[in-house]
Amino acid sequence: MANPSLLILPGDGIGPEVMAEVRKIIDWFGAKRGLVFDVSEDLVGGAAYDVHGVPLSDETMAKAQEADAVLLGAVGGPKYDKLDFSVKPERGLLRLRKEMDLFSNLRPAQCFDALADFSSLKKDIIAGLDIMIVRELTSGVYFGEPRGIFTEGNERVGINTQRYTESEIARVARSAFELARRRGNKVCSMEKANVMESGILWREVVQEVHDKEYPDVELSHMYADNGAMQLVRWPKQFDVIVTDNLFGDVLSDCAAMLTGSLGMLPSASLGAPMANGRPKALYEPVHGSAPDIAGQGKANPIACVLSFAMALRYSFDQGNDADRLEKAVEKVLADGVRTADLMQNAGETPVSTSQMGDAIIAAL
Amino acid sequence: MANPSLLILPGDGIGPEVMAEVRKIIDWFGAKRGLVFDVSEDLVGGAAYDVHGVPLSDETMAKAQEADAVLLGAVGGPKYDKLDFSVKPERGLLRLRKEMDLFSNLRPAQCFDALADFSSLKKDIIAGLDIMIVRELTSGVYFGEPRGIFTEGNERVGINTQRYTESEIARVARSAFELARRRGNKVCSMEKANVMESGILWREVVQEVHDKEYPDVELSHMYADNGAMQLVRWPKQFDVIVTDNLFGDVLSDCAAMLTGSLGMLPSASLGAPMANGRPKALYEPVHGSAPDIAGQGKANPIACVLSFAMALRYSFDQGNDADRLEKAVEKVLADGVRTADLMQNAGETPVSTSQMGDAIIAAL
Ligand SMILES: CC(C)[C@H](C(=O)O)[C@@H](O)C(=O)O
Ligand SMILES: CC(C)[C@H](C(=O)O)[C@@H](O)C(=O)O
Repeated sequence: MANPSLLILPGDGIGPEVMAEVRKIIDWFGAKRGLVFDVSEDLVGGAAYDVHGVPLSDETMAKAQEADAVLLGAVGGPKYDKLDFSVKPERGLLRLRKEMDLFSNLRPAQCFDALADFSSLKKDIIAGLDIMIVRELTSGVYFGEPRGIFTEGNERVGINTQRYTESEIARVARSAFELARRRGNKVCSMEKANVMESGILWREVVQEVHDKEYPDVELSHMYADNGAMQLVRWPKQFDVIVTDNLFGDVLSDCAAMLTGSLGMLPSASLGAPMANGRPKALYEPVHGSAPDIAGQGKANPIACVLSFAMALRYSFDQGNDADRLEKAVEKVLADGVRTADLMQNAGETPVSTSQMGDAIIAAL
Repeated sequence: MANPSLLILPGDGIGPEVMAEVRKIIDWFGAKRGLVFDVSEDLVGGAAYDVHGVPLSDETMAKAQEADAVLLGAVGGPKYDKLDFSVKPERGLLRLRKEMDLFSNLRPAQCFDALADFSSLKKDIIAGLDIMIVRELTSGVYFGEPRGIFTEGNERVGINTQRYTESEIARVARSAFELARRRGNKVCSMEKANVMESGILWREVVQEVHDKEYPDVELSHMYADNGAMQLVRWPKQFDVIVTDNLFGDVLSDCAAMLTGSLGMLPSASLGAPMANGRPKALYEPVHGSAPDIAGQGKANPIACVLSFAMALRYSFDQGNDADRLEKAVEKVLADGVRTADLMQNAGETPVSTSQMGDAIIAAL
């Protein structure tokens, strides 16, 4: 049988340097654990624009559709700020999400014991936090039509459309309930059903899917504004949160920052199963391209490494190896090994991006 | 000259009991400071629905249009959860905002020294916090058409429309710049210009208004997801934040919860100047109707009292009296007088809603 294929898209900014560490780890799993991947690499974002004039070429898009999993670094940078909307680095990422139909975006917000002091929140509020935000990723106001800037009378008007069909809501709800069953068995769904009809439909469909298919999972509903409050007040009240594309964008970033260390947080974007049974999948760190520190060996590769751990778990059914990799990261942190973003106390060992990669491999 | 008029809409849940304390304070200002108001009271929300079958009657709407300022308590409660969308308590509030054209919603997030421990955030992150969120309140996805739940093929689809015209953006931007000039002279504008065309127009217009009319104010732009992160990470980096209706809803609640005590936070919703020069205006606490504690004398009236202080400042040009009232509240807190929601340490004096009102009057 052919080896599973991995398409690596390092992208912009610190993307390439954090991805270089992930490649070392992929190689380690091949050599030591017999998990051999066919790895290929390609361009996305500003890096693709520089070569092809578009942030994702059709060839790369086709490769992503074929790959068993895609690993992405980060996209964007000030160099590309003035580009037209249609060719901005972000459009490459959005095209991947849309055309691969990656409707379920898993964003864990997890607080590592060794880093609990790092949060802006009090330790008892944040220690042991482990929540999972499931964000709808291929619909809503990100993709709804009509959209654009139009002229009406003598002024311009900016328009976007929030749009959700029942089936779009139902499938992401299922993915949240499935996840909850393997975790704390609790789902909180967030919308603005008090002001938006799309939120009313969202609430109804999530409730229906629950009642018919997952009555064993505890389900609650919350307005998204209250959700933001509750995340700040007492985040441990949540297990799995399911919400739409735009609320998910804001709330998952809010949740991520609760942990205080964005450089730690991975994400998975999953679609429907392919012919081989694996879901279409793209894995990427939650952090951005951090152009200010790019190329200086300062970036923290852990979020990207943990994104590969998610790939092992969700694409390749290697839960044990995912655990092994996550434990190695925890050990390295417990040992006080720290990239610049994680330095806090005397006695910690400051390391570069590649030294962090080496330390994780040593801990494996 | 006629006395200025105040329309009081206590609403639902704890609304009536917190408003009763504000009325005592209004009376105090009449008796002791010669600030006499013509006060009338009417129904809104579920309370109006119970009597009129709608959450705001046309008569009350007309009174609100005539009033020099409207003070609102809170709307909503479980009793009304099953009502049709069109007559839910919230619709009464949204009608007031829309028909009075209250486009600029001022939501201070301020941390009172005596309550800094109350936040889920670390003290050094939160102590001294004083930011102002200016939220656009009469447009965007809250009001854009088309909207509704439609049938397409064999399924339902929920649709809302995000819509902003240049002039809608410009007027709320002006209101943010004006405020900034009287504060820290810094405005941060938040949108998702990287994925939404309405965000692109928002960013352009805010920048234009700045360059032409307020070049002296420091302006920055931030994506709303990053905004949520930065609010959690280091909220003191902000002075005035200006953002749209929906982002404003979520981000202002997030900011409010940073302070840890919602029961403290007032808001003002301002429109265009009336014939007498005063802006159309509605003042309300940020907290909801808290049906779980309604009618028990447990509610904290301070947010509603501080909403009246904002009325003194923004509608009646009585900045000194507003300061006086705010100082009285600070003094009461410093003295350890606490409603149930604010109790934290031994040695504090637990009080009821009406005792808190009395304590504030004593401090005046
Ligand atoms: C880069 C941007 C288009 C993207 C989004 O808005 O979805 C990012 O913020 C994210 O959350 O992955
Ligand atoms: C009650 C509700 C309609 C309202 C809103 O969404 O604007 C509330 O959350 C607020 O922020 O004032």
